[in-house]
Amino acid sequence: MNLFVIGLGLIGGSMAIDIRNLNEDFRIFGIDNNPDHLDEALTLGLIDEKAEFDELHKADMVIVSVPVNAALKVVPEVLEKVNDEALVIDVGSTKSNICSLLSEHPRRRNFLATHPIAGTEYSGPSAAIPNLYKGKTNIICEVEKTAFKLQEKAMKIFYDLGMRIRYMEPNAHDKHIAYVSHLSHISSFMLGKTVIEKEKNERDIFDMAGSGFESTVRLAKSSPAMWQPIFELNKENVIETLDEYIQNLQQFKDLMEKEDFDAIYREMADTNRIKDILKGISIKTT
Amino acid sequence: MNLFVIGLGLIGGSMAIDIRNLNEDFRIFGIDNNPDHLDEALTLGLIDEKAEFDELHKADMVIVSVPVNAALKVVPEVLEKVNDEALVIDVGSTKSNICSLLSEHPRRRNFLATHPIAGTEYSGPSAAIPNLYKGKTNIICEVEKTAFKLQEKAMKIFYDLGMRIRYMEPNAHDKHIAYVSHLSHISSFMLGKTVIEKEKNERDIFDMAGSGFESTVRLAKSSPAMWQPIFELNKENVIETLDEYIQNLQQFKDLMEKEDFDAIYREMADTNRIKDILKGISIKTT
Repeated sequence: MNLFVIGLGLIGGSMAIDIRNLNEDFRIFGIDNNPDHLDEALTLGLIDEKAEFDELHKADMVIVSVPVNAALKVVPEVLEKVNDEALVIDVGSTKSNICSLLSEHPRRRNFLATHPIAGTEYSGPSAAIPNLYKGKTNIICEVEKTAFKLQEKAMKIFYDLGMRIRYMEPNAHDKHIAYVSHLSHISSFMLGKTVIEKEKNERDIFDMAGSGFESTVRLAKSSPAMWQPIFELNKENVIETLDEYIQNLQQFKDLMEKEDFDAIYREMADTNRIKDILKGISIKTT
Repeated sequence: MNLFVIGLGLIGGSMAIDIRNLNEDFRIFGIDNNPDHLDEALTLGLIDEKAEFDELHKADMVIVSVPVNAALKVVPEVLEKVNDEALVIDVGSTKSNICSLLSEHPRRRNFLATHPIAGTEYSGPSAAIPNLYKGKTNIICEVEKTAFKLQEKAMKIFYDLGMRIRYMEPNAHDKHIAYVSHLSHISSFMLGKTVIEKEKNERDIFDMAGSGFESTVRLAKSSPAMWQPIFELNKENVIETLDEYIQNLQQFKDLMEKEDFDAIYREMADTNRIKDILKGISIKTT
């Protein structure tokens, strides 16, 4: 079985590690437009050999794990080059654009649109880790458009990685994910920005910040190369979530200015039920 | 040595655990206006016995770890009741109010204003854990107003707990801490609120949220009873940080609406240097 992984960062690299460990008969080929990343992936043992687009005819399976705007160019090109039995999977964080783009593609049946909800704030081949996907959700869009035999092939891999499958429409996916993932990243980046701007003396941040600050700004370490295209391709939904978030913050500030601290207490007490929701996430991921 | 701990939650309880483990000759008395918490603290071994305000004349040292508004009532009352050699420490997250209130107090020399920057999102006696303070910063305000012998007594305890000391003016403390702690909590609470409001179906949050969401909303589990008074007593500074945070978010939204994704990339890339700052915090706390 020949597996091609295009884009050898955190997501593609981590998938390669687990697939390799679970399937001795897989030969893993790597493609990346950054030659340093490709060398690194080879040295780290994420891939068996470096490859080119022209070799894609040998592929039984292709995982495309590149920024979401790049995927819009790469996936159609891959579909042109693979053979008729090959499975092509994309794993990007937005799904409407790629699904629309490919809706009438003659090789649509070879393609499976997925979003494995897993990651860390690190990037590049050295960020790849084993078991990243264990217990995580994989959202699959428009499953009915993929050939049944290829669906089965993909599911076998996802189950082996320990993932739970959830099926969604691309538009619903993009709307929900804006709230539970994309907004968290903006909130974190802007929090980091606000503090850095104010605390010109970084020593003060070092000395005074505790684990709470660390946890809320962790995502501000994330890769702009990955996230800028996500925000671009999910623009409408992200703007809507940002709007609501800003309104809630503004309302909190108004309550502060009016000194309505009873209302502020209630705001916090009402939101405390996030505890139960987070408990669900923890149980899922451990 | 008789130590009284007033308020047996996360902060006071964790301090009691470490002081107990390090000093066999301490007898620890607990006071709490919640009788259930007091019983729990006794059962958990955080304290040796339950006590009342009228017994404070026996105290060599008193730690007041109650919500910051309650401290404004409790600390003066404690200072009235203790003997002339006793040390009274408060550990609240705002320092200007308590320092102003006590500036002319006849027992001012018995009082030390501190803010150990440590905690978790949990509360109550059962949240108390050993080694919470190891490697953390303790900010001490107006140290010169405390009797030298009592300063020494306090420092011995803080060093034993593994804390690093930093001296600051109360107003500077309240301003900086609004950025690196209080704002993180509001950002987290409002993020939790925005998502809960939208995702009426909690199943969707469970299924779609990953570790990034978990990390950014973790602080939304925090106790309103502790945080409402902090926001109230640090009102001006908190409003200022909120203002700047909202402006940064609004500007990000404007860039999204103008489709200036190059600028969005730069915003994120500029904020990425938070990595180095967080590295500093991690080194400090591990």
